[in-house]
Amino acid sequence: MSDQANSALQPTAALIVIGNEILSGRTQDQNVAFIAQKLNDLGIVLSEVSIIPDIEGKIIQIVQLFSKNYSYVFTTGGIGPTHDDITVESVAKAFHVPLELNKSIVKILEDQCNSVGQTINEARLKMALIPKGAKLIPNSVTHVPGFSLENVYVFAGIPSIMRAMFEEVVPLLKHGSPIKSQTLQCYASEGDLAAGLTQIQQNYPQVDIGSYPVSSNGIHSVSIVVRGTDEISIASAVHEVANLMRQCGGDPILESC
Amino acid sequence: MSDQANSALQPTAALIVIGNEILSGRTQDQNVAFIAQKLNDLGIVLSEVSIIPDIEGKIIQIVQLFSKNYSYVFTTGGIGPTHDDITVESVAKAFHVPLELNKSIVKILEDQCNSVGQTINEARLKMALIPKGAKLIPNSVTHVPGFSLENVYVFAGIPSIMRAMFEEVVPLLKHGSPIKSQTLQCYASEGDLAAGLTQIQQNYPQVDIGSYPVSSNGIHSVSIVVRGTDEISIASAVHEVANLMRQCGGDPILESC
Repeated sequence: MSDQANSALQPTAALIVIGNEILSGRTQDQNVAFIAQKLNDLGIVLSEVSIIPDIEGKIIQIVQLFSKNYSYVFTTGGIGPTHDDITVESVAKAFHVPLELNKSIVKILEDQCNSVGQTINEARLKMALIPKGAKLIPNSVTHVPGFSLENVYVFAGIPSIMRAMFEEVVPLLKHGSPIKSQTLQCYASEGDLAAGLTQIQQNYPQVDIGSYPVSSNGIHSVSIVVRGTDEISIASAVHEVANLMRQCGGDPILESC
Repeated sequence: MSDQANSALQPTAALIVIGNEILSGRTQDQNVAFIAQKLNDLGIVLSEVSIIPDIEGKIIQIVQLFSKNYSYVFTTGGIGPTHDDITVESVAKAFHVPLELNKSIVKILEDQCNSVGQTINEARLKMALIPKGAKLIPNSVTHVPGFSLENVYVFAGIPSIMRAMFEEVVPLLKHGSPIKSQTLQCYASEGDLAAGLTQIQQNYPQVDIGSYPVSSNGIHSVSIVVRGTDEISIASAVHEVANLMRQCGGDPILESC
């Protein structure tokens, strides 16, 4: 299975991480790996991730491009009440729809403010503005929802809230065949394994074989990852990779199923 | 300083992370934050990061686009000896140049093989193929170099090797004014700060003010980051943000300089 072939069979997705804090190096992103793993388990191929700043034109451009090219688009970040939160308005503009004040979000905000003695103000009401036609994504953590518009799902950037929103969306997504993987590790050299791996990849076009050198405390090893949707093909390819490792003087260790 | 304005004054960069292992969720990326921080210190604005799979057409497309749009492009991953290492060939194709066997890399590979009793083979020699006209980037860790071609710098994906290669490249890059930042944290609410922050951002267009809610063990706080190249403007904006926080009932704490 090449990624291209895979994409033709499975739903595809792209992720847009919106936020200057990642691009300035201030914050280590935690959302890409979470979403990547979840989509993998759902049989949805994460085809591309774009990390972009809080610039309206850039957000509009990437949302339009990804929405056209992939089954699903997820965005994280930029949906709060402050001046640098411009995701909602940008997504609305990407689809040429106006923003509307959503009454159920206004109610959530009013209840929150009442419970802690805060006043509802224009900045807070900004979080109740969503694109016309958008569907709310519940937020079990801080209650102010995200939304989906067409095939674009707009999440908060805070990992705990993003995760809660993602779980709400899972039942709405068309799932593919779960993508399974097995990993073999050994102390053989990538340069010795390479020719044999090329042959095994050719013999099993329905799986993806990835080779990842690992360097730890000056000791070099290699992990071979076999991924695909057909467990019998994975098992057969893993069997051949294990034999290849033995031929190259490495003792294969099965890392994970 | 909006990002657009900033980009006009400072050199810009984009990063392409090439590798199915990030998109499958198998590996947590460690290279984005490192490169982002380093570029920030060098006064080079990291404008965009793209994480893409080992697909030749996709690599060519993004390399061409980013090379045209930004002062510098960095790539990580896909430069080893195995079938899934297709970055070098893809970058060559992006610039319509052939691959050439580089004699100094062949010598490095031969010396390495001799020292551990391995034989040089076709797969290992693949690592000596670089695009015609490319300049080598030394690798102090495993010695097999990366390269630059036009404004594109091709690094290994293993973080320790990528970092060594990045340090070699630093003297070759045109530096901008270092981008400084100060961060104020307080327990006020973003919704209360928002209107005042908008006003301060308008008063200080030469800095970027970012607002980041933090949620830890159910306690919510907010970090306001003021970034820019002019320390006097940063200090003045920080002074105003601190006053705003006090007005909103939060006691400002200066996190970092």
